[in-house]
Amino acid sequence: MAKELKNFTKRSDNYSQWYNELVVKADLAEQSAVRGCMVIKPYGYAIWEKMQRQLDDMFKATGHQNAYFPLLIPKSFLSREADHVEGFAKECAVVTHYRLKNDPDGNGVVVDPAARLEEELIIRPTSETIIWNTYKNWIHSYRDLPILVNQWANVFRWEMRTRMFLRTAEFLWQEGHTAHATKEEAEAEAIKMLNVYSEFAENYMAVPVVKGVKSPNERFAGALDTYTIEAMMQDGKALQSGTSHFLGQNFAKAFDVTFMNKDNKAEYVWATSWGVSTRLMGALIMTHSDDNGLVLPPKLAPIQVVIVPIYKNEEGLKNISEKVNPLVEELRKRGISVKYDDADNKRPGFKFADYEVKGVPVRLAVGQRDLEEGTVEIMRRDTLEKETVKFEGIADEVERLLDDIQNNLFTKALAMREARTITVDTYDEFKKKIEDGGFILAHWDGTTETEEKIKEETKATIRCIPFEGDKTPGKCMVTGKPSARRVIFARSY
Amino acid sequence: MAKELKNFTKRSDNYSQWYNELVVKADLAEQSAVRGCMVIKPYGYAIWEKMQRQLDDMFKATGHQNAYFPLLIPKSFLSREADHVEGFAKECAVVTHYRLKNDPDGNGVVVDPAARLEEELIIRPTSETIIWNTYKNWIHSYRDLPILVNQWANVFRWEMRTRMFLRTAEFLWQEGHTAHATKEEAEAEAIKMLNVYSEFAENYMAVPVVKGVKSPNERFAGALDTYTIEAMMQDGKALQSGTSHFLGQNFAKAFDVTFMNKDNKAEYVWATSWGVSTRLMGALIMTHSDDNGLVLPPKLAPIQVVIVPIYKNEEGLKNISEKVNPLVEELRKRGISVKYDDADNKRPGFKFADYEVKGVPVRLAVGQRDLEEGTVEIMRRDTLEKETVKFEGIADEVERLLDDIQNNLFTKALAMREARTITVDTYDEFKKKIEDGGFILAHWDGTTETEEKIKEETKATIRCIPFEGDKTPGKCMVTGKPSARRVIFARSY
Repeated sequence: MAKELKNFTKRSDNYSQWYNELVVKADLAEQSAVRGCMVIKPYGYAIWEKMQRQLDDMFKATGHQNAYFPLLIPKSFLSREADHVEGFAKECAVVTHYRLKNDPDGNGVVVDPAARLEEELIIRPTSETIIWNTYKNWIHSYRDLPILVNQWANVFRWEMRTRMFLRTAEFLWQEGHTAHATKEEAEAEAIKMLNVYSEFAENYMAVPVVKGVKSPNERFAGALDTYTIEAMMQDGKALQSGTSHFLGQNFAKAFDVTFMNKDNKAEYVWATSWGVSTRLMGALIMTHSDDNGLVLPPKLAPIQVVIVPIYKNEEGLKNISEKVNPLVEELRKRGISVKYDDADNKRPGFKFADYEVKGVPVRLAVGQRDLEEGTVEIMRRDTLEKETVKFEGIADEVERLLDDIQNNLFTKALAMREARTITVDTYDEFKKKIEDGGFILAHWDGTTETEEKIKEETKATIRCIPFEGDKTPGKCMVTGKPSARRVIFARSY
Repeated sequence: MAKELKNFTKRSDNYSQWYNELVVKADLAEQSAVRGCMVIKPYGYAIWEKMQRQLDDMFKATGHQNAYFPLLIPKSFLSREADHVEGFAKECAVVTHYRLKNDPDGNGVVVDPAARLEEELIIRPTSETIIWNTYKNWIHSYRDLPILVNQWANVFRWEMRTRMFLRTAEFLWQEGHTAHATKEEAEAEAIKMLNVYSEFAENYMAVPVVKGVKSPNERFAGALDTYTIEAMMQDGKALQSGTSHFLGQNFAKAFDVTFMNKDNKAEYVWATSWGVSTRLMGALIMTHSDDNGLVLPPKLAPIQVVIVPIYKNEEGLKNISEKVNPLVEELRKRGISVKYDDADNKRPGFKFADYEVKGVPVRLAVGQRDLEEGTVEIMRRDTLEKETVKFEGIADEVERLLDDIQNNLFTKALAMREARTITVDTYDEFKKKIEDGGFILAHWDGTTETEEKIKEETKATIRCIPFEGDKTPGKCMVTGKPSARRVIFARSY
């Protein structure tokens, strides 16, 4: 199996196949018996749990509380907001019946036609509608605002083409839904949460992101503005990694949610929503991993350090364990997650390959000779560099190395993105350059028409109008009309 | 509103109504627009999160890992295990279509008849079938065993009569699903997890439970044995609070999951499953709360201590805050969750009533006179006792009090259960006594027939055959046939 683990498709040969294989070989997830739905395996879920915990802490630190709203949404709720229904009605799972019965012909169970629902229910593709229908009862006065609520949940969108983590019919996510007394406060909230996402992406996932606003064509269905963080994968494609929406008063109007302001006048409530999902797992995998398997940033690695003993007999293992056990304890005391893998049914070579595929950041190996010489072999997963160092002071060295790997992954990803972000001035050049992947900064006249023409002809979309960077006006590369500033184009996941 | 909060139905007048009101007034949950589904509000969800975190730690400490399996299950999977389908097919939500379209008549959206699924999908009522269908690919050899996996998820059962937390169509839970090489190991696992549940119920929820095994009639659909923890509510009714199932090889046979044992022979895998749900919230509420509202055991209280300043003007508040802020810090250092409520848009009386209804275990109040005299008023929610004590050393006092409240709640609930557990020898006496509520220890001949007769005539069921207690044989109170030992009867939620 060790050999098989190594037998990867290379990124340069077929990036997409490399990804699919990696997800399975690193034991992150697999296809289920249900079309488009995946099983997230324990190792993959452990990474997701680390993400969840960190994000949840950050949400709470910014004043948010968790709550839980129903999985099913009455069909009619979707239609209340005109744009929203256009965006979500087309791909949803519809519950029409509430009972099965024994097949009269004896073939298992069949739907009981007598148990048809009066109004069909939709499995939530997102929860704005059911939540704003609920907020109607929570909000009466300005004193009830703001409401800063988040939900961790599963959602369902009937996608035609699915890929594990990147696009699945069911996925796990969090969705924040906030309610505010003023436009300014809601806009500030949407930006605040975008900043939380970018901090999480960069400082924990080690994934550099560009923050910006979506063009009208790429907005969330029902939003006035959609803010986004966009990451670049190793194949040069963009991956939208989190979005935060300023919803204006659209949902308040659709569900008639008003409040009495300080002047005792009724006003519609202002809203935001924001979410990240298990898609982040895809971003994490595709940003750092290599032809040997997964590479994980230490801050999100379920196992940060693995220690493998190399021994000939029980006596040998005992001697190594006596040396290693205090180190394990010391590392745990420092909050480092460490696994001492002394299982005797697998050879060290197998273990090395397995932890390499699984992206464990630091591996220590201790053999008989190390005991004699007071040394230990240390390997870092990001560069695969290996060296033999003094056992004494190894805890400090491990801690330093974990920090270094975390920083190195970010720096490397950032350098890659910078190297593959180019500026283009003519549409002809654009059409050539887009074939190489990467981000292209180009002028655009601001119209959906031009955006769609570009998409149709090149498969590239506007990823965002970035907050930072060169803000010089210019002329649209397609129409020559005035452009307020360059925007980022890319092909994307 | 303070007055309204106080305006409760009393337990003695209408226990059921008292419960329903309490859930709403303590801001725990509310009915949603979807029949049988509730919205768990932030305060209720914060309690559930504390439960989750503690249980999750206990599962991990016993070697379990989390994973995630699909929400939807192919209809045919349910039929694979004969008992299972009988138990679950009758009350499930069925997805038949995957798309809506605009109503040709212009009335919102309608189900697109062209988007009918070939095979209907069921929203999971429990996940044994989809999980064992997955385990088939994970298990080949004894080396792959045991599998110790847990899932935190939402499930759906189309209940006809629902009550918040106690019985809702959608509920949140965890479901452990383990796979083992031997019968003995699987049985030991089922018992181990029952013990985890009882430890959690007693040491964290302060809810005393009886551990035992269910009669065949009350078993989980598909199990060979169902173990249970049963709690007694203040109205004397039983509440099944957690179950752990020894599934034998039933699901392995249904999904053809075999492994090569050490002798290289194929054997079917042995299984357990075990779960607790948001129903525990109902148990928590109904065990401790009183006519003034919620009473929470400190270990699960989102806010353990609230401090309310009583002041006339800004200067007064400033002086109090100067005194209180270091205390807040000190309590937080000790890991105590404390809220200093200096909001100036609510009067102290309102705050007192609100935190009382919400069951905050300890309340401190600090006024101008307290500052002068170096005192503080301290109130414990469980007994509503109030006293004025020295401010100096208050952190120690609070810590001691939280422990005391935790213990007192358990002791009180245990005393109640003991006082209301009686022994009965004749069916006539049983019929009278069951009207008073409580647990009745009586002899039963071990047949489903007798059990169902008793249920029909008295609405009482066998809650469990307890592991502990008097094991003297006797004669069935109904049929006079031999009985191995007394079992626990009660009416139940």
